[in-house]
Amino acid sequence: MRVKLIGHLQQAYPPRLRRRLLEVMAPAATRTEELCALHAAVGDCFAETAARAVQELFGDRRRPEVIGSHGQTICHLPPRRAAGTSRSFVGATLQIGDPARIARRTRVTTVADFRQADIAAAGQGAPLVPWTDHVLFTNAKRCRAIQNIGGIANVTYLPAAGRPDDVIAFDSGPGNMVIDEFVRHFTKGRRQFDDGGRRARRGRVVEPVLRAWVRHPFLRRRPPKTAGREEFGRTFVQQALRSADASTVRPDDWIATATALTAQSIADAYRRFLPTRGRQPVLDELIVTGGGARNATLLGMLADALPAIAIQPIDEFGIPDAAKEAVSFAMLALACLDRVPANLPRVTGAQGPVILGAITPAP
Amino acid sequence: MRVKLIGHLQQAYPPRLRRRLLEVMAPAATRTEELCALHAAVGDCFAETAARAVQELFGDRRRPEVIGSHGQTICHLPPRRAAGTSRSFVGATLQIGDPARIARRTRVTTVADFRQADIAAAGQGAPLVPWTDHVLFTNAKRCRAIQNIGGIANVTYLPAAGRPDDVIAFDSGPGNMVIDEFVRHFTKGRRQFDDGGRRARRGRVVEPVLRAWVRHPFLRRRPPKTAGREEFGRTFVQQALRSADASTVRPDDWIATATALTAQSIADAYRRFLPTRGRQPVLDELIVTGGGARNATLLGMLADALPAIAIQPIDEFGIPDAAKEAVSFAMLALACLDRVPANLPRVTGAQGPVILGAITPAP
Repeated sequence: MRVKLIGHLQQAYPPRLRRRLLEVMAPAATRTEELCALHAAVGDCFAETAARAVQELFGDRRRPEVIGSHGQTICHLPPRRAAGTSRSFVGATLQIGDPARIARRTRVTTVADFRQADIAAAGQGAPLVPWTDHVLFTNAKRCRAIQNIGGIANVTYLPAAGRPDDVIAFDSGPGNMVIDEFVRHFTKGRRQFDDGGRRARRGRVVEPVLRAWVRHPFLRRRPPKTAGREEFGRTFVQQALRSADASTVRPDDWIATATALTAQSIADAYRRFLPTRGRQPVLDELIVTGGGARNATLLGMLADALPAIAIQPIDEFGIPDAAKEAVSFAMLALACLDRVPANLPRVTGAQGPVILGAITPAP
Repeated sequence: MRVKLIGHLQQAYPPRLRRRLLEVMAPAATRTEELCALHAAVGDCFAETAARAVQELFGDRRRPEVIGSHGQTICHLPPRRAAGTSRSFVGATLQIGDPARIARRTRVTTVADFRQADIAAAGQGAPLVPWTDHVLFTNAKRCRAIQNIGGIANVTYLPAAGRPDDVIAFDSGPGNMVIDEFVRHFTKGRRQFDDGGRRARRGRVVEPVLRAWVRHPFLRRRPPKTAGREEFGRTFVQQALRSADASTVRPDDWIATATALTAQSIADAYRRFLPTRGRQPVLDELIVTGGGARNATLLGMLADALPAIAIQPIDEFGIPDAAKEAVSFAMLALACLDRVPANLPRVTGAQGPVILGAITPAP
């Protein structure tokens, strides 16, 4: 599969639809009728944006072959988590946003429900982008890692000339989550993130705090593993602020230390869980994506922690960061039409490779 | 499309799963996690039965090309009904029972979500069997009607050598619903239906009551139209029992009169809404399906009301009544793979013909 991005378009939910969605998301309770109505309403919202994109990129005379629609996840219960409930021992996942409405509006075959087949094969149903990372970025000569730094940081490792089976992918630990939480705390919610890493640059990393943080059990656990707010959310930050010497640490120092935690935990994860030569990971290029890729202080710390590795933003590979997810799901949609398995069992924990997605034919 | 039934298998929900489903069905409220878990649990239940059927009918060495899975409807809001709510002006429908689990278990491509495309095209998403009735039963020389007598009675009219556009289908009125409700009332719930029509045969039709009933506004309304418990459920029966001369009517007379209502309303519907010659419908053969086809008294009354029309149970056409729905959705699944539109816009009210279903490829 060869990929060329011809354009992308992003559209936020209308505020009222967004509120309705937040109200039904697990662990919420809801009326079944509201879920049913939202399935159609979200589908119409997606359909409208897809129709605009098709019109802008293809005009009146041509159509794309396929649209991929991830859908809006309203509940995701991978096997491990579901096993802890009394109700069910199998995994389950539910995305809404009726693809029939997208196919109807755009007159384009639409693939959706990408996570179900992996879950049915006892996988976690996530992450799904490692396969697209493999197709997009595997290089014949150079070992690469795609490091996404969102709330949580996750890495896809692509050995030189590697096959799908050779891909390693897991959550390395916190991305921006701890940094953002400190910023929100110190600005009383007026700021959501450390723009460009400016506050971290003014601060000073508190080494004893950092040394304690990097001993977090999640960071030592072997992959496959996924992190969330349970590990690095508000509780983590509030515990830090309550610690003995907290009063002597200035706000910018906390932010700098949180930034160092992200950089350090990424570098540590590479040394622990990727192939190494000497004590360094076998890695030539690091491609960074996500909001963290716009944090210059974080990137500087990462460069210090991983000497001799070229760090580049994904944009230099012809894919703007903002388009990465859309590119991935367009690729997954085509893989479904071509009946190419696109889960990576070693990454998701599935029992084997499966074809992802359900195809709604254009009417 | 040529159809040959090679076997069928029916399996009831396990009681606990059935209870969980009844608890979430609209207009119920529920937890989003429970709906998500049920999507998987119902999928596994379907998958197990499908796997048994595949094993019994195909053995170890062969597989069918496709499985059709209607799914369990937990909410159906066709456009007209949704227009009456403040939340949404579009139709919506939600079936659960993850087809990825059926495809996984059986290793067979599975088509599901048949109603969405018709709803997206502003149709009612129902009924869908008129197209399969057309494919199965349209005859070059004889005009036929397929009269299903379930709770509600619905008819598909197939003119001789007709095309899909020529098909007429609508709910004619009550099927067994009024009869069953009287039986439940008089037996205090110990009996659910009039087995073979034995009680109706012992009773006497109360003509003034029947004359009042057949003036019900639903019966006079032009198709397309659909009936439900709102029209012919418990309320209808309780009003009848409260009427002035009710005390002089014996239980079996009520049951006989309810049976006559079904027969009469079917015959009236044909004279009103099907093509007629003189005052009789242009109809050579009437093929009856559903529980009502096993009510001899009802069939006798229907024969009296429709002289010169041959009435035959569907079983004589090689399709046991119990297999009819399964045959229909197998056909609809194949139509989806072949990209054949299978809604009938004249029947569902959709803006045009659309391909029904979403295809989950075998893994």
